[in-house]
Amino acid sequence: MVKIERVDIAIIGTGPAGLEAAITAKVRNKSVLLFGTKDLSMKLAKAEQINNYLGFPHISGADLAKHFDEHLKDHGIGIIEKKVTLIFPVGDYFSIQAENDIYEARTIILATGVVPAKTFPGEENFLGRGVSYCATCDAALYKGKTAVIVGFSKKEESEAEFMTEFAAKTYYIPIYKDEVNLSDKIEVIRERPVEIKGGMKVDTLVTESGEIKTDGVFILRESIAPSQLVSGLEMEGNHVKTDLQMKTNIPGCFVAGDIAGTPYQYIKAAGQGNIAALSAVDYLTKLSK
Amino acid sequence: MVKIERVDIAIIGTGPAGLEAAITAKVRNKSVLLFGTKDLSMKLAKAEQINNYLGFPHISGADLAKHFDEHLKDHGIGIIEKKVTLIFPVGDYFSIQAENDIYEARTIILATGVVPAKTFPGEENFLGRGVSYCATCDAALYKGKTAVIVGFSKKEESEAEFMTEFAAKTYYIPIYKDEVNLSDKIEVIRERPVEIKGGMKVDTLVTESGEIKTDGVFILRESIAPSQLVSGLEMEGNHVKTDLQMKTNIPGCFVAGDIAGTPYQYIKAAGQGNIAALSAVDYLTKLSK
Repeated sequence: MVKIERVDIAIIGTGPAGLEAAITAKVRNKSVLLFGTKDLSMKLAKAEQINNYLGFPHISGADLAKHFDEHLKDHGIGIIEKKVTLIFPVGDYFSIQAENDIYEARTIILATGVVPAKTFPGEENFLGRGVSYCATCDAALYKGKTAVIVGFSKKEESEAEFMTEFAAKTYYIPIYKDEVNLSDKIEVIRERPVEIKGGMKVDTLVTESGEIKTDGVFILRESIAPSQLVSGLEMEGNHVKTDLQMKTNIPGCFVAGDIAGTPYQYIKAAGQGNIAALSAVDYLTKLSK
Repeated sequence: MVKIERVDIAIIGTGPAGLEAAITAKVRNKSVLLFGTKDLSMKLAKAEQINNYLGFPHISGADLAKHFDEHLKDHGIGIIEKKVTLIFPVGDYFSIQAENDIYEARTIILATGVVPAKTFPGEENFLGRGVSYCATCDAALYKGKTAVIVGFSKKEESEAEFMTEFAAKTYYIPIYKDEVNLSDKIEVIRERPVEIKGGMKVDTLVTESGEIKTDGVFILRESIAPSQLVSGLEMEGNHVKTDLQMKTNIPGCFVAGDIAGTPYQYIKAAGQGNIAALSAVDYLTKLSK
C-alpha cells in the first residue's frame, strides 16, 4: 500500500471529458490526479473521421487524440494507468482504490464513459461480502480459500494467475470468445454466471448448468458501473443523474461526458469536462471557507 | 420584404456555441440559417490567450477564431450579417425578423451570449405598442409622427437618419460618450431615459430632468435580451432556463453558450451548441412523424 498526498481533484477517465477537466483544473491551479489509459480513449483513437469538433474540420480520431495528448503534455499532466475499482467518501474527502494503491482527493470527477449498468443477480447485494472488482487488491484475503474470477477480457487472465498464489482453488469464467491461456492450477469453466448466493457472505455462484461453491466472486469488467464505483450515486438508467453544473447527488462528486447522458459526442464531452472542473473548483473554494 | 424558404434550424449568434450548432446541424443534413457577425464573436477575437480549449494548447483568440472560420467554410456555411430583433412562433415554425427581412425556421437555437436583462421601466409593457427594437422595420409606421431613438452605440445614428424620412420629429438619445454626428433634422438629447409612459400606446418618454411627448420609442441595444427576442421565454436571472438537453420552455427553441448560464467558457459553449443542434434534430424528427 502506497499512501499519497491528498489532491484537490481526482479525475477518472481519459476521454475528452476527463482530459478537458484535467486541463481546466490545472489552469485554475488545482492539484490533479488523472486515472485512465495513456492510449487516451480507445473509442476516440478508433474513430475514422470526426467532422464536428469545432476548430478541427474533418480530422481522424487518431490525429485528434494526438492534439489532446500534446495539450495534456503542455500542462505537464501525467496519467496514472490504474483501474479505479472503488471510491468512497471519508468526511470531507474521497478515498480512491486503484488496483493495489489508495489515493485521496477532495473532489471527484467521473468521466468513465457509459457502462451498461447490468449486474449479476446478487452482485450488488454481496459487494464487500465476497464480491469484489479487484483481484489484485483482495487476493490476500483468500488464503487457503476458493475464489471464482469472472473475466470480461483476456487481460484479466493474469489476475486469475495472481489469485492462485493465495487461494487453495481458483476457477476462471471467461465472458469472451478468445482462447484462454492459463496454468493448470486454474479450472476454466465456460458457463455464464446466473446468480451469486450466500448467507452473510457469498457461498455459491450459480451458473447456467450448475453451482460452484466458493468464498469469493471477482467480477472483472472493462469498466465498472458508476453506482458500483461510488456507492449511493443516483442514476437515471445507464447515466448518472446530474444538472447543468454537472453535480451529482454526492457533494464533491461531479460527472462529465457519456456517463452524464446523451448525445455521445466529443465536443459535448469536452464542454462538460470544463463545467465539471469549474464546479469542483467552486466546491473547493466553499470547502476552504 | 424578402420572403425566404423555411429552413430546419435558425441559429442566432456566431460565438463558439452558434458555430458548433451550425456545423453539427449541417453534418446531420439539416438546412441552416446562421445569423451574426462575420468577425465571429468579438469577445473571442479579443481574447489574448486561451489555455483550456482541448486540442489547442495556448492559442490566441484570433487564431482560434481562424480555425473556427475554416471549419465553417469547410462545411459551406455562410453567415447572415443581420441583427435579429424579434422571433415568434407561428404554429409549428418560427418567424424571424432580421432588420428588414422575415425568415422562417422550424427550430431556433439562441446562442447570443449573455445580455443584462435590465430594461427601462415601461419598456416591456409597451413593446409592440410604441416600443420597438428596430427603426428600419417600423419607421414607416411613424409617418408624420414623433419618434425617439435611444441608441446604445454610434452605429445606431444611421437608424435615426432613416427615421427622419418618415417622422415629423425625431429625437436621438445616445447612451454612449462618443461625439454624435447627425443632421439638423434630429434633436439630440443627452439625458438618460427613466421611464416609458402612456395609455393604450406610448405617449411620453420620461428622462432624468424632463419629459418628451412621443408616439414611439426605439431602443437600439447592441444585443436584445432573450426574453424580449422571444416572447414568453422563461428566464433565470440573466440566463434562459434550460436543461441538460438545452431545451427551453418553448417547444422547438433551444439555447447554447453563455445565454444558458455559467461558466462562460469557449469549450463549454461549443459543447452546448452541439447538444442544442442534436436536440433540434430530434425535435424535427418528431415533428415530421
